[in-house]
Amino acid sequence: MADLRFHHRAGPYSLARIAEASECVLADSAQGGYEATDVAALQDAGEGHLSFLDNPKYKDAFRATKAMACIVSAEMAGEAPKGVAVLVSKNPYRSYALAAALFYPWPAADGVVSGGAHIDVTADVGAGCSIGAGVVIGPKAQIGKGCRIEPNTVIGEGVVLGDGCWIGANVTLTHCVLGARVRIHNGARIGQDGFGFALGPKGHLPVPQLGRVMIGDFVNIGANTTIDRGAGPDTVIGMGTVIDNLVQIAHNVKVGKGCVIAAQTGISGSTELGDFVICGGQSGVAGHLSIGTGARIAAQSGVTKDVPAGEEWVGFPAAPRREYWKQLAALKKLLSKGKS
Amino acid sequence: MADLRFHHRAGPYSLARIAEASECVLADSAQGGYEATDVAALQDAGEGHLSFLDNPKYKDAFRATKAMACIVSAEMAGEAPKGVAVLVSKNPYRSYALAAALFYPWPAADGVVSGGAHIDVTADVGAGCSIGAGVVIGPKAQIGKGCRIEPNTVIGEGVVLGDGCWIGANVTLTHCVLGARVRIHNGARIGQDGFGFALGPKGHLPVPQLGRVMIGDFVNIGANTTIDRGAGPDTVIGMGTVIDNLVQIAHNVKVGKGCVIAAQTGISGSTELGDFVICGGQSGVAGHLSIGTGARIAAQSGVTKDVPAGEEWVGFPAAPRREYWKQLAALKKLLSKGKS
Amino acid sequence: MADLRFHHRAGPYSLARIAEASECVLADSAQGGYEATDVAALQDAGEGHLSFLDNPKYKDAFRATKAMACIVSAEMAGEAPKGVAVLVSKNPYRSYALAAALFYPWPAADGVVSGGAHIDVTADVGAGCSIGAGVVIGPKAQIGKGCRIEPNTVIGEGVVLGDGCWIGANVTLTHCVLGARVRIHNGARIGQDGFGFALGPKGHLPVPQLGRVMIGDFVNIGANTTIDRGAGPDTVIGMGTVIDNLVQIAHNVKVGKGCVIAAQTGISGSTELGDFVICGGQSGVAGHLSIGTGARIAAQSGVTKDVPAGEEWVGFPAAPRREYWKQLAALKKLLSKGKS
Repeated sequence: MADLRFHHRAGPYSLARIAEASECVLADSAQGGYEATDVAALQDAGEGHLSFLDNPKYKDAFRATKAMACIVSAEMAGEAPKGVAVLVSKNPYRSYALAAALFYPWPAADGVVSGGAHIDVTADVGAGCSIGAGVVIGPKAQIGKGCRIEPNTVIGEGVVLGDGCWIGANVTLTHCVLGARVRIHNGARIGQDGFGFALGPKGHLPVPQLGRVMIGDFVNIGANTTIDRGAGPDTVIGMGTVIDNLVQIAHNVKVGKGCVIAAQTGISGSTELGDFVICGGQSGVAGHLSIGTGARIAAQSGVTKDVPAGEEWVGFPAAPRREYWKQLAALKKLLSKGKS
Repeated sequence: MADLRFHHRAGPYSLARIAEASECVLADSAQGGYEATDVAALQDAGEGHLSFLDNPKYKDAFRATKAMACIVSAEMAGEAPKGVAVLVSKNPYRSYALAAALFYPWPAADGVVSGGAHIDVTADVGAGCSIGAGVVIGPKAQIGKGCRIEPNTVIGEGVVLGDGCWIGANVTLTHCVLGARVRIHNGARIGQDGFGFALGPKGHLPVPQLGRVMIGDFVNIGANTTIDRGAGPDTVIGMGTVIDNLVQIAHNVKVGKGCVIAAQTGISGSTELGDFVICGGQSGVAGHLSIGTGARIAAQSGVTKDVPAGEEWVGFPAAPRREYWKQLAALKKLLSKGKS
Repeated sequence: MADLRFHHRAGPYSLARIAEASECVLADSAQGGYEATDVAALQDAGEGHLSFLDNPKYKDAFRATKAMACIVSAEMAGEAPKGVAVLVSKNPYRSYALAAALFYPWPAADGVVSGGAHIDVTADVGAGCSIGAGVVIGPKAQIGKGCRIEPNTVIGEGVVLGDGCWIGANVTLTHCVLGARVRIHNGARIGQDGFGFALGPKGHLPVPQLGRVMIGDFVNIGANTTIDRGAGPDTVIGMGTVIDNLVQIAHNVKVGKGCVIAAQTGISGSTELGDFVICGGQSGVAGHLSIGTGARIAAQSGVTKDVPAGEEWVGFPAAPRREYWKQLAALKKLLSKGKS
């Protein structure tokens, strides 16, 4: 169903192949030779299409789907309409992601370096990289194998990219070291000066920012997001962390592994996030704080204190979720009394 | 009064011509041959200048203006100083906008394609387009007639632009279809991957984002704003909607016609805005919500529930305006009692 | 300690030279000939290194440092470990900034104009400028002496840069006049259309934005920040003001001298900030307001009224800090009573 002007479809693939690639078990192994040509939502799917059911809310659509095959949990497998091949998964959404990536793989590097790119003679570009028109790569930069760099992106002196990175268009990377298979979306800015000044009535003096940005494998960074380099220590983004659009990460921040940071969030200087922290959209965390592993910050919250591991905080100034909602309820009660 | 290093002035124009172009009636038709050379604010205007009065707050400036002519409402027309020609309008600000655009038209396409642009041989560029230096246009993109594309912008494979679009500098457009006369300001990012992951302790798996961004005629998108493409369905921006700078529109969002979205607002995934919705600056709307036609969200508010059509909501969590301010007043009263 | 792939170190410098450059007095003038090779944090410093103590919190690290020399206040000078040369300063952080800039000077202009730049024949580029690949400079732009412009930046028609400006990569400058020694970071957008429309049910008509952006000497503007030009009057940023990443400054805003505006702040149209105003991260100021000299707006606050000079405001709607915290405390007391 994807518009093929924009999305390149691979396949078809046999259900056996799909099951293997997507961590599923085909309920009826005799159907392993069926060939799927595309993925589609339950209500849109037709002949040759593979669909999935994750949220039980869509159960009715599942029961009525015209898909050829469907990825579902073991519990729901029995509800499949007649004639729909069933791929059983412990995590149907994850399995769908794997299957969809089979049909619509991320744009691969094809080894073509545009004549319109400007690559310094001392830069080292790995085998098989695609470098778009207008890309500028500075002295002694090291680009890993099979990276794809979209047009008009600027990669500064000494920057290091691991293998298989994808860097969008109009991006700027300076003073940073990226792991393997990092994805950085259009317009992101990584590695510029942190906001460090010796403030004073005679003028604010910029303090040289002598650190770097270190980015782990599989990190995903959204469009127009900004990550400043450290002032002396490094700014660090842990492996597998995913960051949305228009996020601000200040100098010296350490973000752990597997964090999820939604759009327009801001993390102030020298704050540390443990692993698997979740920040809702437009949330903010003040500087020099520690947010424990697995903590969750609700959207638009403003965190002004350390947050213990595993807790969920809400509001401004942010407080534990239960406390916040209890107080809000108590307040409403109080106010309604006040009226009578 | 505009600095002509930056603004190209056309004209002069006769008051008759201006009245016609700006939906005004000249109070004294004998003055139709007067020639205006420029527009200016009431207090700055002088010989040959056209000004306007919209906000009654500036009545005194109107009474003292040295302008040659002035656009005003019928009610205020009688207050014009002697010798000032009066153009009567039902909507003086709108009329001023039309008149000012006569003197300072939006930069037109001039048919010049820079030798420094990189245009794929399979792209289709309409007649009369201006394409700036460093612009990169991908395979099979379709650019309508008379579009103007400023330098270093990247237009991805298959992207479609209607006639008369203006695309600023350093913009990235991918996976999107634009109507006619769309304006996209410098650094905006349209059509990149939505923030969709199958989350899990073994790593967050990106879910292929197979939709597009569909943008209606006359839409205006601000600088460094980000609009993600849909995950399967499309992200849609309705005709005539205007979006300010640094706004985030997530995947699958539907924005109706004629909406006004102020700077740094964030609309989360799959939320739908009806027509003529207004979002104040730094406001946020959670995902999967419905904001009714004509609703208004106050600046910095955080919307966590559906908002009925025509209502105005404020605060976090956002509530109807009257309720919000009533509660705030009751709270202040309660607190002042508490002190005594 | 800085990674020399990214940071170019100058020196070594004698302590006498450093003391002079960094507004310090060497405690023992006999040590003026000692040569320092680098700067480093107290705990990391070793042979030949210069460090500093500003925050008394790090007193223990100071007492244990292995640095060759250290910048400290007169009060702390006596606590220096034996063998550490002492440079006494009234403002050790400021002195460190000066000393560090000696070792790690801001990238200088080297007079190299890339063959990959597109410079209009009518533009005037001063002596000694560095112009990166892919830079586009429009007609009649005036670039001062010794400016450095990083790759893929676009400078529009008529734009003026004072001497010694640094403009990052992928920046867009239009309709603006910059003073001397201005720094604009990667991806910032200066001078585009303000968000001005004559709203109406038949469509929102863009109102021509006929002003400029005027930027004073020594101003610092962060990555992906947006500053719109005025609608008629100019948007003004005063001398020495420092602005962080992802900030929005709307049309007609006047920002005084020496202000500090943290990341993701938004200043709405026609608002005026006095000198030395401080805005915390993610704060917002509504339109047509006046924020007095030396006022401070706390992070995430939403200002809806004029703020008198010197006051500190917090919250939404923002109120004076003392009042805000007093009310919050009273509220908590009230709620805890309600429970019993």
